[in-house]
Parts: sequence; structure tokens; C-alpha cells
Amino acid sequence: MSTEPVLIAGSWRESEKTGFFQSANPATGKLLPAHYPISSWADCEAALVSAQAAFAEMRVMPGEKIAAFLEAYAAKIEVRAEELVAMAHLETALPKSPRLADAELPRTTGQLRQAAAAARSGVWRQAVVDKANNIRACFGAIGPVCVFGPNNFPFAFGSASGGDFAAAIAAGNPVIAKANSSHPGTTKLFAEAALEAVLETGMPAGTIQMIYRTSHSIGEQLVADDRVGATGYTGSRGAGLALKRAADGAGKPIYLELSSVNPVVFLPGSLAEKGEALAAEFTGSCLMGTGQFCTNPGMIVLFAGEDTEAFIADITKRFNEAPAGILLSESVRKSLHESHRILTGAGAEVLCGTGEGNGAGCCVANTLLRVSGAAFLRDAETMQTEAFGNSSLIVVVDSADEAAEVLEKLEGNLTGSIYSATDGSDDAVHDILEPILRQKVGRLLNDKMPTGVAVSPAMNHGGPYPATGHPGFTAVGIPAAILRFAMLQSYDNVRESRLPAILRDDYTGPAQRFIDGKWQ
Amino acid sequence: MSTEPVLIAGSWRESEKTGFFQSANPATGKLLPAHYPISSWADCEAALVSAQAAFAEMRVMPGEKIAAFLEAYAAKIEVRAEELVAMAHLETALPKSPRLADAELPRTTGQLRQAAAAARSGVWRQAVVDKANNIRACFGAIGPVCVFGPNNFPFAFGSASGGDFAAAIAAGNPVIAKANSSHPGTTKLFAEAALEAVLETGMPAGTIQMIYRTSHSIGEQLVADDRVGATGYTGSRGAGLALKRAADGAGKPIYLELSSVNPVVFLPGSLAEKGEALAAEFTGSCLMGTGQFCTNPGMIVLFAGEDTEAFIADITKRFNEAPAGILLSESVRKSLHESHRILTGAGAEVLCGTGEGNGAGCCVANTLLRVSGAAFLRDAETMQTEAFGNSSLIVVVDSADEAAEVLEKLEGNLTGSIYSATDGSDDAVHDILEPILRQKVGRLLNDKMPTGVAVSPAMNHGGPYPATGHPGFTAVGIPAAILRFAMLQSYDNVRESRLPAILRDDYTGPAQRFIDGKWQ
Repeated sequence: MSTEPVLIAGSWRESEKTGFFQSANPATGKLLPAHYPISSWADCEAALVSAQAAFAEMRVMPGEKIAAFLEAYAAKIEVRAEELVAMAHLETALPKSPRLADAELPRTTGQLRQAAAAARSGVWRQAVVDKANNIRACFGAIGPVCVFGPNNFPFAFGSASGGDFAAAIAAGNPVIAKANSSHPGTTKLFAEAALEAVLETGMPAGTIQMIYRTSHSIGEQLVADDRVGATGYTGSRGAGLALKRAADGAGKPIYLELSSVNPVVFLPGSLAEKGEALAAEFTGSCLMGTGQFCTNPGMIVLFAGEDTEAFIADITKRFNEAPAGILLSESVRKSLHESHRILTGAGAEVLCGTGEGNGAGCCVANTLLRVSGAAFLRDAETMQTEAFGNSSLIVVVDSADEAAEVLEKLEGNLTGSIYSATDGSDDAVHDILEPILRQKVGRLLNDKMPTGVAVSPAMNHGGPYPATGHPGFTAVGIPAAILRFAMLQSYDNVRESRLPAILRDDYTGPAQRFIDGKWQ
Repeated sequence: MSTEPVLIAGSWRESEKTGFFQSANPATGKLLPAHYPISSWADCEAALVSAQAAFAEMRVMPGEKIAAFLEAYAAKIEVRAEELVAMAHLETALPKSPRLADAELPRTTGQLRQAAAAARSGVWRQAVVDKANNIRACFGAIGPVCVFGPNNFPFAFGSASGGDFAAAIAAGNPVIAKANSSHPGTTKLFAEAALEAVLETGMPAGTIQMIYRTSHSIGEQLVADDRVGATGYTGSRGAGLALKRAADGAGKPIYLELSSVNPVVFLPGSLAEKGEALAAEFTGSCLMGTGQFCTNPGMIVLFAGEDTEAFIADITKRFNEAPAGILLSESVRKSLHESHRILTGAGAEVLCGTGEGNGAGCCVANTLLRVSGAAFLRDAETMQTEAFGNSSLIVVVDSADEAAEVLEKLEGNLTGSIYSATDGSDDAVHDILEPILRQKVGRLLNDKMPTGVAVSPAMNHGGPYPATGHPGFTAVGIPAAILRFAMLQSYDNVRESRLPAILRDDYTGPAQRFIDGKWQ
């Protein structure tokens, strides 16, 4: 069987494969024609050798050169925009417009250009100079980075195009991209564009390499390899935790973005003030993109009462009336059904949905499940099973104390939201719940749905385990996201001419530096 | 058996113990009279409950209040200086002066005061404000921190007094300190002083708690507990890796400082220029404190030749002539002998030492081992066995290429040093070796021994695994060390009055903030 080539050491070559796979069009359920290889270790080994050679150049490369590559790549993506949008639509069923063409693609090129600016300025390096002791420190490149991209953002989180890719390159690390199996064709197009930019800007051949899939054990071997600096992974919890175990055992940093139910608490006064508007807001957020966002509001907490019953009736009606969107793949469909089975098995009541959707292809009916606070607390772990897709679990609590208990039982999440009345009537309850929720999430919101992750330097797309693997890092937001792929490097009495430019006395660049106790 | 009490929830209480232990005076080998409990889980559980209550207050406490506690504690340490020095000398045999009284004690109070200043100013929080999106972020407290201190710095790395303690508290986290078993009495004195400062400054009862020892399995249960925010551990690799596995499995950050051989490369021209001075410098660094520093130069790389033979003869003479110091404990002595057995078993030649030292108590003769580059490369892993104490392994290489191969085989280390000629004759070889060494170490030195870890904001007392567990963090140097015990917290559309002061528009404090793309 002839399969698509992999990108290794600057050329598209036949994979040393152990098998192949095809992706499917989720709108029709039909397999797409291309055959993609499942790589053996030989492909990984070759990629590691080339990545190591590239790293030797990139780690000391002027930021200007890295920036030029990232910007050339962004421009090439724009040239290929139509082709990329068409392929991603075919592979993921995500709408061409506005989603892919007008939202995700500009976000992706924007991230690459922000990363370019950070590489150029060195703003991410956090240079510190202690003249009295002649000790100087800054962050530097960590080594070749493996990126495993998720199914739900084929552009903006794509392994060869997204935030992890941009951050890793900006710090001076080559990337070995593992395509997501649901959109290999899209990832291939990105890798082609990236390679063109590599050649055009004179970057090392191993700057960006791409394989499509490996066995689990070879993936684990890859992230634990001595030559790897770090790994970025976004995807399912099971696969992510297996990679984490492998990387942890080898002492290799791995940044994971796993599951998150993104609790949203509606305090009573907020529903009393504008329950109908909030019902529309929640429904829009939960069903947007068929609910397939890392920050989808998968769990809402309501306080028992008339307003809550009206709100539940309202959102149930809205969920019933809204068309069920197409899911990203057959495996997403199956996984959503399985989550519903687990949640209802644990006692959640079905308000609407759980059955097949009416649309063609991969589709599940818009789903709302309901459980009391007491029932939630009886098996809080199971009740937090992520139902990735157009689905949410409503937890109706009896009191502020019970709400506090529910929040105490939450695992780490990417986000947590609290809606409260504008007249202060919810403030006492807010002040009980906020401290609990704050420590459970990376991003705390007020009066706002968690979907919509601005590419802002103040963003934290991260959070405590198991939302991610470490609560000190974010996957979105530059320069902070770059630090995941950097190591702290101190220079003690090192001769001036051997120092990185940013640590020299004669540095005149734009990056802020902390010199003798003051930011300059 | 009546044992010393543990400090839990603000009072000294009888331990719910499973056994007891005594420490010994390493100068005499005799057991000291006090009996210390080995805590059961019940002690840990009680400490966690109290730590959680303390954390609820501390995480939102004004930095000023935390600073006042740290400063009061530093003052109390100074009041008890004589008692602390006497006890530490008894338990560790470290010299009273200058080591304990004039170096380590002022370093310890200095660290506490630097941490206080950082808590007061908020400089560690890295506040970022994005006004257009109304998203704001800063680092905040992570939760109760467990600190396991090492045997070799009873004050400055002590679990209830040292750098991890100071950093954890500064970020707003209570500390559960596990005393090192070689100096429980010293740790107890610190905990007493800390409790006095807690009471005097009105801090929560669980701010600082202290137990002496647990079984391994209970230690692992502790670092993996849901209520723990993070752990700091400095000590042996075996115990540290067991704790790492437990913490990793629970997704809890753990910052480890494990073993490090701290390679020092003497390029040929440096020996030609001033071999004798370097011999004195190396000998002083390696034997200082009986070699029991994390940054002890445990491996030196020399280039085959006459100058190298003269240098080796010189340092061998110096090692033979210098008195062998007393080691910290019988277990350090045994471990040093075992390391020598492993290294010589792998082919290292004994130039001097390996036998018992002449002094009383825990003592091993000053030791130099020698191996060729080729022999090193035949079993590079075994040859990097840390020989903690007054001992170093000399690797004599034939060429720059062989030196490069040796460095390529190094594990992660805290430090790496390169000595080179001042006339430029070593520069070509330096430029081959530096890029390899740079990525293997946290701190790179030129023309300087690695012992002496300045408490500087530019310090990196860290490095790639297995020197530590993550190359992005340092255990020494404020404010950076504080970030180990912090989580990134983003606030999205959160009402102004609910924001931490440092993120509000009307903030007027001293911390730098990154506002709309500019540091202010």
C-alpha cells in the first residue's frame, strides 16, 4: 500500500511504516481516499537526529531569523488559505465560514506573528543581571519539542501550525509534529507550507518535521527520548496520561491539556435579573462548534428555586429547538454517547438529548442532564466525566453550603465562571464560593461564558491537574506560553563575549531586563 | 517510649507515632539522647487539615502581613543563634565558625528577609493586564507546601527555615516541614522560633508545621494528597525519585534537587597558564565542607599531556596532605564508600583516598579517582555515580572530540564550569564544548569553581533532570524561586472589587506590571 510521505530532515519521504490509516468525512461518515502511514521507530529516530542538528543552530540563532521564518510561514498559510479551509472542512466538518476561514485561520497566523514578535524582541527571556556578583540569567531553548495536536482546532492548535508549535519555535526549538488522526490532510498542508518557509528563510532542515501517527508505545518512547527537550500535548485524558507517565519517568517536561468541564455557577440573583438572556448566552456557548471546545461549559451549578426551574425549562427548550451540529469524528460521537451512559448510570436525569441527532454523519442530539447536589456528591468523580460535545450537566444545589461542597469536589479545570446579580444580593454567596473555585481553575470569569479564549498576554489557558499537568503554565498567550519550552540558564562569571547578547552590558535591544534589582 | 513532640496546628503535641529514631553526633559516632517520633498518617492528616485552614487565610493575605511574619522569624533566629549553632554543630559536625554562625546563619536570615521583601512588593507575581480584553493575570499561592530538607545545610536549606520554606511562605502557602533525620533537634529549634513568630504576628496556626520522619509510603501519600499544592525536596536521588513518582501520578508539582557531579573542564591553556593556582582552587572547592555541597566539583575533565600530569600530581599531593573532614553522618560515610566501590568497580583508578580518614567519627580519606575518556565512555552512566563528599573523579581525555563525547553523555547537572586560557589559545575547543555543556546544566561558569551559590536574582540553582525535576525553576534566588510554589491565575471580566489589588486599575504598589504590552 502506497501511503502519503512523512516530512523528515527537510524532505518528504516514504515512511518506514507499520501500517496505515484513513481519515473520514464526519459529515458523511465516508472514508477519505488518502492513506496515511503509521510510523515505526525508524521514522522517529530519523526525525530526532535531524531535530538535534537543527537545535544546535536554532538555540543560538538570532531572534530576528526565527521571526522571519514564522512570518514567512504565516504569509504562506494565507496564500494557501482556501486549500486549508477546504481540507479542514472535509476532514472535520467545521464550517468554512466564519469558523475556519474567518476565525481560526486569522487566529493561527496571528499567533505565529505574535510569536515572531516575541522571538525578535526577546521579551520572553526574562533576562536578569546581577552586576555585583557578575551572575546573569535568562530563559533559553530547551531542545527538540514534540507536539501532539487535538482534533478540535485543526489550525490554531494544529501540531504543525498552532500555539504549541509557535511557542516552541519562538524559543529556538525545532518541532516534531504528530498530526491528529482526524485531520492528517490538513496537517500535511501546513507542513508543506512550513517547509517552504524553512527553505525560503534558510532555516535548518529539521526545523519542522511531521509524522502522522505511531503506536502508543512508540509515542511514549518518543516523549521520553534523551534528545527531546519537552512535549506539548492536547487531547484525550487517557492518551495524555500515558504520555505523561513516560515523560515523567524520564524527567522530561510535558505540557498537557486534557479534559475540563468548565463549571459555570449561576447565583440566584443573576437568574432573577435576566434569566432569559442568560439562557440564550449559555445555550449559544454550549452548542457553538457543536460544543467541541476545551472551554465548553460542560457543567452548570444552579440554586434550587422557581427561577432555576424556569431557566432549566428555557434552556431545555432551546436545546431541543437548536439543530444538532456535526461532531468532529465518529470517535467523538462514540465517546459522547459513552459519557452520557456513564453520567446517567451514575444517576443523572436526561432533560433532553442523548439520542442520535437528526443531521447526517456524526451527530448526537443536543443534551442536557440534571442531577441534584446531593446526588452529585454521592459520586463526584463520575459526575465530572467530560462529555465532549453539545452536552452539559446541570447540578441543582439546595444551599450555598452544598454548592461549596460541590466546588470542593471539583478536579482542576481550565475555567470556572460565576454569574451574580448586579445589585449585590449574591455577594455573600459569591464570597463563599469564589475562594474555592479560584484554586480549582486557571481562568476565573465573572458574568461571562468560558468559550472564547483570547490570545492575550493575560490569558491563562491552563489550570490545575487534570486540566493540565502543571498549574504554572499556559498554552495560550504570548509571551507566557513560550516559557513551557524554555529552560532557565544562569551564567556565572562567564566572559562577556561568550554571553547571549541579551545578557551583555552593551545590550540595546527592546526586551525588558531586571538589572541589579530593577526592571529596565 | 516518650518522644519529642511534633508541631501541628499551632501546638507541640504528642505524635501518633509508629516508632522512633535518634540522631548521632558524627564527630563521635555516638547517639544523641533525644528520641524523635516516626509519624503515622494520623499526624499528616492533622497537619493537612490545619494547613488547609491556614491556606484559606494566607492565599489572600496582604503581602505586608506575610513579610512581617518572615521578618519576625528572622529576628527570632538571630536571638537563638547560639543555641542553633550549638545544636547544628552537635548533629552535623559542621564547624561552628565560620560555617554555621558566620555563613549559613546570616544566609538563612537573609533569604527570609529577601522573601519578605518579595512578599511585600509582589515582585514575584508577574502581573499582566490586558485592558482591551479586560483579562488580567498574576501568579498566586498554590496551596500547602511540603518541604523535605537535605542533610548538608541544616539552616539555609532546612525544611522549616531554608529557601524552600521562605519561597513557599512568601507566595502565601503554609508549610509542612519534614525534618531531615540527621538534624531533627536543629529543625525543632527552628520550628519553635517560627511558631513564636506565628503567634507574635497573628498568622494562622497551620502556617508552619513540623514532623520528623515518616515511612516512605506515608511520605509518598503525603506529597500526592489532594490538599497539597506542591512539594520541595532536596536530598538523595532514590528517595527523591520515589516521591516524584507519587507526586507525578497525582499531578502535583514537585521540585527536586537530587544529585549532581558538577563537571569542571580545565582546557589545556588554563593549566599551562596557572596550573598551580588552579590546583589550589580546585582542592579548596572540593574539600571545603568535606565536599558536602550540592555543587561540589565531583568530576573534572582534563586533556592528556604534561601539564595535566603535573596538575594531577599536584592535586593528589594536596588531597593527601589536607586533613579529612568529618562527614555529616554515618550514612553519608557508607554512601561515599559505596560510590567509590562502584566507580572503582567500573574501572576508575585510585590516586589517593577511598580508605577511612584519620579523624574521629564519620570520616573518609580525601579521594581522587582517575579514568581515561575512553574508559568513561564505556560506562558513562556508572561513571557519573555521585560520590557525595570529599572526592572527585578525574577524566583524562585524548582530544576535543573525546571531551565532546564525554560531555554529550552527561546527565543533567546543577553546574558546569569551563576554565580556559586568557590568551585565546583554548577558544576553539571552548566553542566546541560550550554548547554541549550549556544544555546540560542550570548554571554555566567560566574560570570559577561551582561551590558558592550566591543568593542572587540571577542565580539558577537548578538544571535538567536528574539534577532537578524541571529545568525551568531554581531553588535559590528570589523572586524566581518563589514561582515554584505559585499557580498562574487569570481573571476574565472579573469585577474590579473582586480582583487582587495588584491587578486593579488603581494599583499603586511597587511591583512591575505588564500593562497592554508594556512593562510599567
